[in-house]
Amino acid sequence: MRWQNPLRCRVWHVNAWPWSSHRFLAMQLTSVTLNFQKLPHQNFCAVAGHLMTVPAACTPERYFLFQAQEQADSLCKNPGELLTIFENGWSLLTTNFVSSKTSKHIYKMATLQAIKYSRGKLLVLDQLRLPHENHYDEVSTAEEAFDCIRSMRVRGAPAIAIVAALAHAVELHNGDCTATEPEEVIAHIEKRLDYLKESRPTAVDLSNAITLLKLATRAANLEGLAHPEAKEAILNTYIQTAEEILAKDLHNNTSIGSHGAAWLQQQYNASSEKPISVLTHCNTGSLATSGHGTALGIIRTLHSEGLLKHAYCTETRPYNQGSRLTSFELVFEGIPSTLITDSMAGALFNLHRERMNIGAVIVGADRVVRNGDTANKIGTYQLAVLARHHGVKFVVAAPTTSIDLETENGSAIEIEERKREELTQISGAIVNEDGTVDTSKTARVAIADQRIGVWNPAFDVTPHELIDAIVTERGTVVKGADGKFDFSQVLPERLASVAARQL
Amino acid sequence: MRWQNPLRCRVWHVNAWPWSSHRFLAMQLTSVTLNFQKLPHQNFCAVAGHLMTVPAACTPERYFLFQAQEQADSLCKNPGELLTIFENGWSLLTTNFVSSKTSKHIYKMATLQAIKYSRGKLLVLDQLRLPHENHYDEVSTAEEAFDCIRSMRVRGAPAIAIVAALAHAVELHNGDCTATEPEEVIAHIEKRLDYLKESRPTAVDLSNAITLLKLATRAANLEGLAHPEAKEAILNTYIQTAEEILAKDLHNNTSIGSHGAAWLQQQYNASSEKPISVLTHCNTGSLATSGHGTALGIIRTLHSEGLLKHAYCTETRPYNQGSRLTSFELVFEGIPSTLITDSMAGALFNLHRERMNIGAVIVGADRVVRNGDTANKIGTYQLAVLARHHGVKFVVAAPTTSIDLETENGSAIEIEERKREELTQISGAIVNEDGTVDTSKTARVAIADQRIGVWNPAFDVTPHELIDAIVTERGTVVKGADGKFDFSQVLPERLASVAARQL
Repeated sequence: MRWQNPLRCRVWHVNAWPWSSHRFLAMQLTSVTLNFQKLPHQNFCAVAGHLMTVPAACTPERYFLFQAQEQADSLCKNPGELLTIFENGWSLLTTNFVSSKTSKHIYKMATLQAIKYSRGKLLVLDQLRLPHENHYDEVSTAEEAFDCIRSMRVRGAPAIAIVAALAHAVELHNGDCTATEPEEVIAHIEKRLDYLKESRPTAVDLSNAITLLKLATRAANLEGLAHPEAKEAILNTYIQTAEEILAKDLHNNTSIGSHGAAWLQQQYNASSEKPISVLTHCNTGSLATSGHGTALGIIRTLHSEGLLKHAYCTETRPYNQGSRLTSFELVFEGIPSTLITDSMAGALFNLHRERMNIGAVIVGADRVVRNGDTANKIGTYQLAVLARHHGVKFVVAAPTTSIDLETENGSAIEIEERKREELTQISGAIVNEDGTVDTSKTARVAIADQRIGVWNPAFDVTPHELIDAIVTERGTVVKGADGKFDFSQVLPERLASVAARQL
Repeated sequence: MRWQNPLRCRVWHVNAWPWSSHRFLAMQLTSVTLNFQKLPHQNFCAVAGHLMTVPAACTPERYFLFQAQEQADSLCKNPGELLTIFENGWSLLTTNFVSSKTSKHIYKMATLQAIKYSRGKLLVLDQLRLPHENHYDEVSTAEEAFDCIRSMRVRGAPAIAIVAALAHAVELHNGDCTATEPEEVIAHIEKRLDYLKESRPTAVDLSNAITLLKLATRAANLEGLAHPEAKEAILNTYIQTAEEILAKDLHNNTSIGSHGAAWLQQQYNASSEKPISVLTHCNTGSLATSGHGTALGIIRTLHSEGLLKHAYCTETRPYNQGSRLTSFELVFEGIPSTLITDSMAGALFNLHRERMNIGAVIVGADRVVRNGDTANKIGTYQLAVLARHHGVKFVVAAPTTSIDLETENGSAIEIEERKREELTQISGAIVNEDGTVDTSKTARVAIADQRIGVWNPAFDVTPHELIDAIVTERGTVVKGADGKFDFSQVLPERLASVAARQL
């Protein structure tokens, strides 16, 4: 442990938020010294166990102070860096350092997690049972992770990659690898990763994560080590790299949240007296990522900073990610929110934009190409048209890993068409005659003429002309005077390398 | 019977339309003499039974000729007038006279009917069982009609009025009225009508129909008549007036179809070589009216005239009138068609407008006010914004009875908000594990987090700026050079009377 200075945080426990009975924890960093370079693994250990029980009667006016025993290497330098505090092995709070001095920002406990991990143990929320049931599967082997991904119990590109990476970390931690020679150990790891890749062969995040894990494992420093220390070093390198993927994703999301919230705050001069409302589409929250979320991450940050008046979410037909998953997240966290059908967005803007101060549509992205054209869940494009018509900002939230600089514009993006039954049938928990929902029984029902022709594109492409800002973990990209997005501020090396290859 | 000239029709039987196995009947009028003033009752009798069986091997190139035995009073004067041909007591074909000479238009058999009526017998399609089951209820009393309307087995403002009016006509025809004195007979009729009005007190069409029926009945010519002729005259007047309401609605719809199709044909110079595609929202077809429909009536007419390439229909969340009812009608009639979710309209225009020659969004109207602002099913407004953005025409189809000249603009229209369960739950026929649909079993399932806040407006208002044409049974109204709709061409008296009152 190499903490040099005391880690001091003010923990604010809000016992009863006005709109929900959930309990909130927030912390304010007063004096922080932390070597972010050593994250994530260090702070897993350094801070774990040091968040004491918060008195139940604590009021918003009272601060709870605690001091970490460990010392950090050096002063935290970059605003927006990440701290994850673990309690009983589960991450309890994810926040970011707004400054190394006192901060007025209050961070809410990130309670909803699709993935709960501590070394040797991985729990994954079964999203097929949402919103009616809140069940976690224990995932201890690559086979269990494969099944979990294949059956869609976990979804969202980042979450899939993390579950695969961590499931194998758990296996290794539990002694699954019987090999002893370094080459055999590495071969074992690579075989398991190749197997995991087949759980969703088209997922770019998964395949990127596997490439990274293989490279890191091969690069493990074995100098002067023999059995069993060499094996231990390889396993530790794999496990730390997998944990870094989790922490990196959390970090990216909280950074996107901060950058997006800051940009919107600035656009509307928003404040707690003059908060803004936003609309989001599909699910881009804690359930699709390691936590916090991308588009929903911005909404979470707006809310935690007191800048959010109201969050609207679309149903997101045909797969209802909005009504099933985003609604669940919003309710879970007590964010003031309202569900609408996809057909109501125009009427919402027209009738309530002024009264509710609706400032932005915030969506995620499946892929952002070089000119800023963005592929995302079907329905995104028309929300952009409607936002423009009503003078509402249109914001895309995406980690830089979703930016594809090789593809020049959106016309090259192929659109996957999915099966007709997604429109003509739907599944859900049975509603009894008395109106109660029986979560133990589900049924699939026909909701359309089964013979009608169906067009079911999975996503659409929003042209950059209709997008006001693309928020990444490295900052918010807006259009220049020429009306073009310039990613050189967030991806200078990648952009230069693409340009060089194209010369 | 007062037919003077032979009624000659060419019946075109298209045995196998390319895209369906349905059989079509179409007729081409070569020489028509018919006194439209005497409709509807006369042609119910005059033409009934004279449509002979069409040879099964008939090809599109062969015409089937038949000649009515009865004679019509005089030459049909107005293009667009209506002919209903009955076979075995059920209306088999509804068409309109495009000219009294040969017409190149081909009319398709209007096979789908929410209401089947012949004197003494009324059958009403149970729309709650659609699209999975095609069941007609026999409605023989006012009580049965009341129940049918109240339980939503019949829906659509015109259809409700017709079912109420005709149910009482059936009762009277079957000797339900035991009174003998004229005043008692009239009192009996009025009491039954007042009872029927309570089945849907807010329905303007129903209350207008009841007012009309009461006035007509009181005006029955009883001069020189005593019992039982006086009673008979009153009953006959009632029954004829009720049947006129049915025929008038059919007439209005087919006229709307012709005017709308003609206007669109002209806008795009459409032809069978260059047909257009259209998108519609909600259900405005045979199921909501006596037959043919308003917006869907235009689509039917375009199709029967060979001007339709493809019809797209939205799902129309939250009540799915598009996927349940419009899809059913389109499939039933073999119109080439595709269902999309409400979120796909923008992507459809963006990707397929050129290839599919998508020319118009055609919708119905709950109410059109004086400046042309139109209240219609939620989602209509944003379709108008999307249509404008993509250069697609936006057309409203509405009988003049839906035009409210008293209300100056759309801001005065109150928007009804409906219950949350329409978004968070849905009913349908059970889909078995093997994918088959069991129409005998239905279930209600939860499709969203049940705790989320919900906004569920029943309709929205589309400003006249976004509307290109309003098609009525009296003609198509477009905007003048001042950008304003002028209803004086279709409603001169009503407009003058409103103007006079407001002076």
